Amino acid sequence: MPTSPVLTAFPAYTRLNTLAASLRDASVERMLNTDASRTGEFSTSAAGLHLDYSKQLLDREALQALLQLAAEAELPAAVTRLISGEEVNNTEQRPALHTLLRANAGPGLEDKLGEVKAARASMRAWADRLNSGEHRGFSGAVITDVVNIGIGGSDLGPRLVTDALRPFHGDVACHYVANVDPADMQDTLLDLNPETTLFIICSKSFRTEETLTNSLLAREWMRTAGAADTDLDKHFLAITSNLKAADDFGISADNCLPMWDWVGGRYSVWSAIGLSCAIAVGWEQFQAFLDGAAAMDQHFAQAPIAQNMPMILSLLEVWHVNFLGIDNHVVLPYDNSLQRLPDFLQQLTMESNGKRVGQDGRSLAYSTGPVLWGSAGTMGQHSFHQLLHQGTQLCPADFIIPLTTYTGMKEQHRRLVANGLAQSRTMMVGRSENDARISLLARGMDEARASELAPHLVMPGNRPNSVITLQALTPAALGALLALYEHRTYCSGVLWGINSFDQWGVELGKEIGGQILGVMSGDATETVMDPATESLIARWRAAQ
Amino acid sequence: MPTSPVLTAFPAYTRLNTLAASLRDASVERMLNTDASRTGEFSTSAAGLHLDYSKQLLDREALQALLQLAAEAELPAAVTRLISGEEVNNTEQRPALHTLLRANAGPGLEDKLGEVKAARASMRAWADRLNSGEHRGFSGAVITDVVNIGIGGSDLGPRLVTDALRPFHGDVACHYVANVDPADMQDTLLDLNPETTLFIICSKSFRTEETLTNSLLAREWMRTAGAADTDLDKHFLAITSNLKAADDFGISADNCLPMWDWVGGRYSVWSAIGLSCAIAVGWEQFQAFLDGAAAMDQHFAQAPIAQNMPMILSLLEVWHVNFLGIDNHVVLPYDNSLQRLPDFLQQLTMESNGKRVGQDGRSLAYSTGPVLWGSAGTMGQHSFHQLLHQGTQLCPADFIIPLTTYTGMKEQHRRLVANGLAQSRTMMVGRSENDARISLLARGMDEARASELAPHLVMPGNRPNSVITLQALTPAALGALLALYEHRTYCSGVLWGINSFDQWGVELGKEIGGQILGVMSGDATETVMDPATESLIARWRAAQ
Repeated sequence: MPTSPVLTAFPAYTRLNTLAASLRDASVERMLNTDASRTGEFSTSAAGLHLDYSKQLLDREALQALLQLAAEAELPAAVTRLISGEEVNNTEQRPALHTLLRANAGPGLEDKLGEVKAARASMRAWADRLNSGEHRGFSGAVITDVVNIGIGGSDLGPRLVTDALRPFHGDVACHYVANVDPADMQDTLLDLNPETTLFIICSKSFRTEETLTNSLLAREWMRTAGAADTDLDKHFLAITSNLKAADDFGISADNCLPMWDWVGGRYSVWSAIGLSCAIAVGWEQFQAFLDGAAAMDQHFAQAPIAQNMPMILSLLEVWHVNFLGIDNHVVLPYDNSLQRLPDFLQQLTMESNGKRVGQDGRSLAYSTGPVLWGSAGTMGQHSFHQLLHQGTQLCPADFIIPLTTYTGMKEQHRRLVANGLAQSRTMMVGRSENDARISLLARGMDEARASELAPHLVMPGNRPNSVITLQALTPAALGALLALYEHRTYCSGVLWGINSFDQWGVELGKEIGGQILGVMSGDATETVMDPATESLIARWRAAQ
Repeated sequence: MPTSPVLTAFPAYTRLNTLAASLRDASVERMLNTDASRTGEFSTSAAGLHLDYSKQLLDREALQALLQLAAEAELPAAVTRLISGEEVNNTEQRPALHTLLRANAGPGLEDKLGEVKAARASMRAWADRLNSGEHRGFSGAVITDVVNIGIGGSDLGPRLVTDALRPFHGDVACHYVANVDPADMQDTLLDLNPETTLFIICSKSFRTEETLTNSLLAREWMRTAGAADTDLDKHFLAITSNLKAADDFGISADNCLPMWDWVGGRYSVWSAIGLSCAIAVGWEQFQAFLDGAAAMDQHFAQAPIAQNMPMILSLLEVWHVNFLGIDNHVVLPYDNSLQRLPDFLQQLTMESNGKRVGQDGRSLAYSTGPVLWGSAGTMGQHSFHQLLHQGTQLCPADFIIPLTTYTGMKEQHRRLVANGLAQSRTMMVGRSENDARISLLARGMDEARASELAPHLVMPGNRPNSVITLQALTPAALGALLALYEHRTYCSGVLWGINSFDQWGVELGKEIGGQILGVMSGDATETVMDPATESLIARWRAAQ
């Protein structure tokens, strides 16, 4: 099968390869210190976010070549294709219109925009009725707790947004259950009262195994507490496109909010899937979250490549993966309330770009999506930063730093910011053996021991990282931040020539899961597995 | 500087390189299906755990060569060095005696064992006094909540163990605060009552920035609630070796439990650092946790290499990193209560083996510790499994599957196990283009569209993974599991020739953090940073 030509076919590709080799011995610290305008030029602002990428392993020439690559790949035209509703998801023959979910206008997309606006009105109505206490449970009590049941995109996005916007929470507490492991649901219900709890079931098909299993548990819990079948509408909403299945479950059409084929799960927090967030923070703040994302969309559509923040982040990703040979990416939010951001970005980026064929189905001869990982700073400093600084592989980092805090504890927050900036600088400057020796001598160590120990303190430095700062973690800034990474993901998909909106790689596991469940349940005695799986099933059986 | 010869100098190294190349086109599925004894031979049991590594990209010849490598590196002698208390932490001139923390005998280490037993007795006494309600707060109320303040090893281990053993919890609830972000502490205190809360401050030096900052917040909270300075002993314990600093804080020596230089933070959950766990589950269960680890220690010390579970896991790691060129490792516990296991293992493995110099300080010419990441199954199936199955890089996986559940929900748990086994099998078998086409046709798709779409469903398979099963997630099994990964980490360190027990790479960041904090606070106006850091500090200043 011939190889898809996309990335490697652009004229800039060859040039970038040469430049990457020539930068192998460059010192970023020297480039920074000898060029007063580097920091200003290697940074850009958009929608309340500021990106400083001047500590990347990159000089002006390489940056120009990357911008050239973006031009050759016609990234601006690709943005138009995305936003105008072309079939960018070619294998599923659909557009990917998450930008429409936060838009107020959509030329040529008026029908869909009408549906979006109707869904927004419905979300707003539910958020208002729950926050005002107007909506009541079967016993007449006010709803105090909402449990979102969903997995993947129906869980990671809403959970992150609710966590991150804690200073904006109202009186209704939102909880999230995702795992098919029954302990997940059990632990959550332990502290809740059926009379004051409302469930939101998020599943486009209303068939997702984990979600359906957990929903049945929830319904059983509600019935055991005395809710009649006619009461279920007081305690269940569904975000689904399968009204029939929801109705069979006991949820009437009035309690269903829509999902559309043209929004992928991992891009859906802006849709009714975000209802739990809208309830948690109230409609006004949720609207601000949408507006923040829309501001980033506008920047993405209008800013020239050289100032275009999502495009720059994407070019850096391709620079790392395809020219520096790095296949991981670490995201370090220096804000405890963003601790779930790496989980969210894992799905967004790895499900979108963990692909090995081009849009046309031909195998790609180069690397695509890297492994994304990370944790909230400063936690990682006491865990994996050892490897970031002294490991044998490079881990390019995004530091994400809100510059102010809602907690009122300015002194501690200053320490947090200082730590983030310090880790970013440390990755770049490193430490020479001589500096290490001097530092050990200064601690009073004798010359022999200092010389022996110094090599262990050496840090090569030159480890690429970017810093994204925001004035405060407002709903708008959070919306802009998530939209930024969505668009970065799309641009990288375009540069790699892949469809970022399908996920065919998860199908087979579901099929085989069904087969194995059949064997375990004794329903499929003649299904033949490999000897390892058979032996593990036998082990499971013996344990029961 | 000459290159450290360790791994590459072993005769087996060259042979393994050749074998790795010859296995590039091998099919693991074919090897499994044509060799009835493979599954049995490529698996081993220890301390209640079973490891099946028959789906690894490995044949008998390569396995033999790996075992040969272990023999050449004298792993069994290295185990003896570790357990007998030799100075395996050479740069800090100390032993690493975490095995002693769960031992009942320690030939030649009687003094240290005496201290360990005294600490155990003290832990037991505190756990008993808190669980019986004998220990009271300043108002005379029974303590209902314990907050562990610590970071890194003083947080990740205890937090994981407490989470994982939820079915064994008593009446005292344990909480964990780690991040210097004030939101972390604030969120935790929100639901607690000072009169019924006890804090455990975990810091060997009593100087860890995050821990001290959070402890001061806790003390302030307690004082505001009316606690006198003489009451602090009713609400604070310290795990520290700095009794003076604890006393200055207001914690008397009677309330301090020890930490020792010969236990690293990431290996310390077995020590008094685990006190919060002992309180959560009661002493008997904590003792079972220690006993489970001790059973794994015994296996590690006595089993021949070919059956030695930690050694096998380590050989697989080196096989992946140094012969197959893979620099990441994914851990997938199919149990929601192990969702923090990847975080714990991140610190354990990446802080231990993210090193670029040998024990003698010479630069290594080969890769060492990989990036470890993961999440609780089935969450990842709806997130990053797309990349596991169809990405351009290999991500070797450990599936960890308890075969029974404490929840009583057998049906859901069966689904969970089926999913885990299915993902493991799917990674191996993959799907050919022809099979994909047939499957699409069977869904009613027309021939043209099925042929066009099929390449997108192709999965190369042959993706290496192991399955670790346990009868149930008991305290003993959990202890064995954590000890297993500790020993795997040590063995890999030995094969790479590095010291797994120091962490010099985290020092510089702390120094620079102090400098930047000085600049931000206006105390160090003449400190010169790089222009990027200066510009970011200016941005922070403007935001205040």
